[in-house]
Amino acid sequence: MPIVQIDLLEGRTVEQKRELVTKVTEAISESVNCSKDNVTIILRDMPTHHLAKAGVLKCDE
Amino acid sequence: MPIVQIDLLEGRTVEQKRELVTKVTEAISESVNCSKDNVTIILRDMPTHHLAKAGVLKCDE
Amino acid sequence: MPIVQIDLLEGRTVEQKRELVTKVTEAISESVNCSKDNVTIILRDMPTHHLAKAGVLKCDE
Amino acid sequence: MPIVQIDLLEGRTVEQKRELVTKVTEAISESVNCSKDNVTIILRDMPTHHLAKAGVLKCDE
Amino acid sequence: MPIVQIDLLEGRTVEQKRELVTKVTEAISESVNCSKDNVTIILRDMPTHHLAKAGVLKCDE
Amino acid sequence: MPIVQIDLLEGRTVEQKRELVTKVTEAISESVNCSKDNVTIILRDMPTHHLAKAGVLKCDE
Repeated sequence: MPIVQIDLLEGRTVEQKRELVTKVTEAISESVNCSKDNVTIILRDMPTHHLAKAGVLKCDE
Repeated sequence: MPIVQIDLLEGRTVEQKRELVTKVTEAISESVNCSKDNVTIILRDMPTHHLAKAGVLKCDE
Repeated sequence: MPIVQIDLLEGRTVEQKRELVTKVTEAISESVNCSKDNVTIILRDMPTHHLAKAGVLKCDE
Repeated sequence: MPIVQIDLLEGRTVEQKRELVTKVTEAISESVNCSKDNVTIILRDMPTHHLAKAGVLKCDE
Repeated sequence: MPIVQIDLLEGRTVEQKRELVTKVTEAISESVNCSKDNVTIILRDMPTHHLAKAGVLKCDE
Repeated sequence: MPIVQIDLLEGRTVEQKRELVTKVTEAISESVNCSKDNVTIILRDMPTHHLAKAGVLKCDE
């Protein structure tokens, strides 16, 4: 029953997100030995002014 | 002090969300014996290309 | 497909948590018109030194 | 390696968010003795119909 | 800068978790075209009385 | 009404966590102009085998 939340910078295409959930589900299913049917993934887009590293917004890097 | 985060598929009306937070707050208050005043709920809408089950995006089902 | 995360102060019994997930699932199913089968709930216990309101830890209140 | 998620009511300016991540990063770095470089912050805006206290949506207060 | 949170049922070995983070990082890096260095993963173990599907705790299934 | 979740490596003292929530609450209150009373902070400890950067568990670095 792995529940996955992935926050990533906005701008990726639906096609990239399609590949992302397929590959991440496979990776989880193989490594922790669970059925793919049990994997739930939530994606969240982040604008660059909503992510900061070392106190600096991504949009200001 | 329960803090609740609910990710749900987009498309629900404000009226449905009004009923949702009222009923969920009641359910929590009754079952874990806490004041309704202490319950905080965050709702997040998910587009169908941001939720996946068994490696398949909701929009592709 | 609502995915729910509930952080609550530790100390509740399994019986209370059993009632909590049953009632919250019902509340969600009724209000946003989705099947109970589609509701996933994650519970997380918080010790009182891991929750703060107004800058004060719960254990210091 | 602190990872911080801050959900806040929408309406703040990028300038306020710039100050927010700078000050929160400093506060964390000073108090738990870690390098600022290791602090990651995710911000999420909440519309007033996506936050509820005591079972009442913010937009209905 | 993908930030990933994975809640999974407790009981997996450190070796399984080692493989999990390696494979998930690869999956993300390949699909959304970002450097592996930028992928952060948080794992959280769930006891079976902290996960519910369709209103039923995992431990009661 | 900012709701803050901070995942940090385990090992910090309650005293450090006390200072952490005080300083983070101040930082938020000052920068986004909200009352300290409205700031809620959840802390979560991460063992080093539950945090990964670039596909490598912290405990393996």
